This record gives sequence, structure tokens and C-alpha cells, in this order.
Amino acid sequence: MNPTIELMKSHRSVRQFTDQRIPRETLLELIRAGQGAATSSHVQAYSVIHVTNPTNRERIAELAGGQDYIATCSDFLVFCADMKRPTEASERTGASVTRGMTEQLLVASVDTALMAQNVALAAESEGLGICYIGGIRNNPAAISDLLRLPAHVYPVFGMCLGYPDKENLPEVKPRLPVEAILKEDAYTDDTEEVAAFDESMRRYYSQRSGGRKNSDWSHNLTPLFDTKLRPHMRDFLVERGFEMK
Amino acid sequence: MNPTIELMKSHRSVRQFTDQRIPRETLLELIRAGQGAATSSHVQAYSVIHVTNPTNRERIAELAGGQDYIATCSDFLVFCADMKRPTEASERTGASVTRGMTEQLLVASVDTALMAQNVALAAESEGLGICYIGGIRNNPAAISDLLRLPAHVYPVFGMCLGYPDKENLPEVKPRLPVEAILKEDAYTDDTEEVAAFDESMRRYYSQRSGGRKNSDWSHNLTPLFDTKLRPHMRDFLVERGFEMK
Repeated sequence: MNPTIELMKSHRSVRQFTDQRIPRETLLELIRAGQGAATSSHVQAYSVIHVTNPTNRERIAELAGGQDYIATCSDFLVFCADMKRPTEASERTGASVTRGMTEQLLVASVDTALMAQNVALAAESEGLGICYIGGIRNNPAAISDLLRLPAHVYPVFGMCLGYPDKENLPEVKPRLPVEAILKEDAYTDDTEEVAAFDESMRRYYSQRSGGRKNSDWSHNLTPLFDTKLRPHMRDFLVERGFEMK
Repeated sequence: MNPTIELMKSHRSVRQFTDQRIPRETLLELIRAGQGAATSSHVQAYSVIHVTNPTNRERIAELAGGQDYIATCSDFLVFCADMKRPTEASERTGASVTRGMTEQLLVASVDTALMAQNVALAAESEGLGICYIGGIRNNPAAISDLLRLPAHVYPVFGMCLGYPDKENLPEVKPRLPVEAILKEDAYTDDTEEVAAFDESMRRYYSQRSGGRKNSDWSHNLTPLFDTKLRPHMRDFLVERGFEMK
């Protein structure tokens, strides 16, 4: 196992940081490393908002559901899918541009995620800790207003970065067995692997909580599939020009 | 610059490979490294189909627009956003599950992309070359049938992996200046940075083609925003249970 793969397998979401600040040049280097990721047809359909204003950091921490570390970590980034830059660049050449295609939403969201994952891993390779903030999508319209995001740009997720408080480093969370994820030639049922994983997650939660947490992977998923999880996303995207045509 | 960041900044899409095959244990290690990536609420909403059947490899090469290296590279993977596994797991606990939310499409697509980018970089850290295949979405229904993908699973992109033919390694393609991508506190216009990048891309294409290719970044984007780019994606996703409600 080489050091890069080792780094990937030791990822955990860090939410407790020291007061040390990340040098500006390091931050730029992380973004440049992010830009090295593959991008669909070279479109580079992303922008990153570096939120430094303390009031805005506190406001975003609230809007994301009370995640204080957004306000206190060294640096907070909002990764945005950006179809404004490329569509306008194309338009300036005289091209006839159609916006709002479902495919464009996918291209921009995937481009943004590939780029962000490089940033995350680059940060970890420099000894930093990170935490993705999907809670950005709890209130995407308010956050878009705060960051003055124009049409055809939407915030996909945030990321907290900082030097981890090594005395409070969370454990690496187990993952589904590789046999459930990797399938040969065709999709196959993985109910048995999921059942085995549920058992190991139940032991994991019990051990970590001193017997107080009695749950497993399958039970933990319920809030995600409840109708209440971000039902505003469709209208929000449409309103920002991602009409999913 | 540490070796992990160096690796990110030297990424290129490799389409020419030697005949050497990737050991099975290495492939499993790459997938496990992929699984180390952050996942929204631990949902792990992805499956990877390892396509080994030569007839299917050739058929996918055609369906993706005549990309022969899909058939000839050592290993070909199709990364799928998978909402079947977690929604059914949740349902088995007795939960009332709503499918087809726009948010679920985003969660699964982003989860898949984060995971895949780890796989890509893990492969490169082992001396392999990779190429993402967005052309999977040229004919997603036919490819889903071929791989027997059930409802609530869709193929986001493919990935070719193999040992690069080092005598035909493509150059690292330039990226937009970091000043265009990283914005302080609010979205700002980057027309000037794009114009400068267009100039440098024009020189890059001219040099590489011995003066024959006269284009730039903005002109190259036109096919992406033409109405003809994958207008079937919306209906395809709806038909597979991703209704974008």
C-alpha cells in the first residue's frame, strides 16, 4: 500500500481543529491540485468561494444546521457548480447556447466533485483535516444570496479545512465490503453483504458509545429517504437556471 | 509540493496502454481506496461494474461513440450512482421511503464522483493511467440494459485503466488560472482571466498541432452547449426512477 492509498484509507471527517491558520500559498496550492482533476470536455465547470468574512461564516454555520466549526475552522470553502463561465465564454464566440439541460447539471456537479476530492486529499496530504458540508443544501438560496452567486452557479457543498486537533481525531468509519460495491459484468444483489455490514456497524456503534448507541447502517439511513430531506432542491435549481430539461 | 499533490498536477487522460494486465488484488485495492472517500451521511450510494466480457466491452466502446480503448485497456469500470441499495436497506427496517427526489440524484452522483476520483488517483499512484468515459451517457439506456442495472441505479461515467504506453503519453492540459476559480467571499466576474486563458490555449493548440489547430478554450466549448448534447438524459433518469421531484 503506497502513501497516497494509505492516506485515502485513513480519511475521516475532522470537525475539531487547532487555532493554527493555513498559509495563503498552501490554500492556493490545494486549489491548483484540485484543478488537476479530470474535467468533462475541459469545461472546468466549477468555482470555489473562499469565505473569510466572519459574519458570513457564522451565518452559513447557522444555515447549514448549526455546524459551528464552519465559523471556527481555519478556512471554509463553498464548491459551486458553475455553468455561467463556460456558457458565457461560448456565447462570446457567437455560439448559440442552450442552458438548463439535465446533462449540464450532471457535468457541472461531477466536475465540481472530482475537483473537490483532489482538494480534500491534497489537504490531507499536507497534514490538514477536512469535512465536507452537505448542509449547504439545507438553505441553498440564502447561501447563494450571501455569496452573491449569479444564475447558472449553484453551491454543491462546503468544506471546512484546518489543522486537526489530534487528541480528538475521530475514528475511521467502516465501509461496505468491497464485494458489495464491485460487481462483475452485471449488477447483482448484495442483500447478504449489507446484512453482514449492518452487524459490523452495530458492533462499531455499540463499542464507540459504550453500549448506548443501538443502531446499524440500514436504520441510520432513514432520514435520507424521508420526504423531508431537502425537498426544496428541485425548485431551487430551476430558479437558478438549472431547469433539468 | 508533496508527491500526492505532484501526482494530481501531472494527471492526463491516458488512452494508449501496454498489454500488461492489472492484478486482481491491485484492482480491489483501488476500489477500497475509493471507498475511503467521504460519503454523504455514510450512504455510499455507488456501485462499480467491472466489465470483463469482451463482447460487452466492444459494444460499450461503440455505444460510447467509438472509443476503442474501452475494449482494449486492461480493465474497464462503470461507476454507477446507486440509490437501490440504501433505499431498500432502509425499507427492510420498516422505514417509509420516498424515491426520486432531486436531492437523492445529487447525493448519489456526488458520492460516486468522490469515490471515483480516489480510484483514479490511487491508480495513478500505482503507476497506472486512467481515462474517464463520459461517453457512457451517450447511450445510457443500452448500457444499463447490457449491465443489467436495476431501477434506482444509473451509470454516471466509465473509467479505462491500464499501464500507460509511456512513449505516447499525452501532455498535461493547462487549466484556468487559479484566480478565476478561487473567489474571495463573493462571486466575481472572471471574463479577463478567461480571455487570458483563451490566448494561452490558442498558443498551446497551435504548438501541439504544428500550427494546424486554430482554436481556444471558449470556441472548444460549443458542442457542450448545443441542444444536441445528450438531450435524452432527463427522460432516461426519470425512466430509471430518478424523477427529480
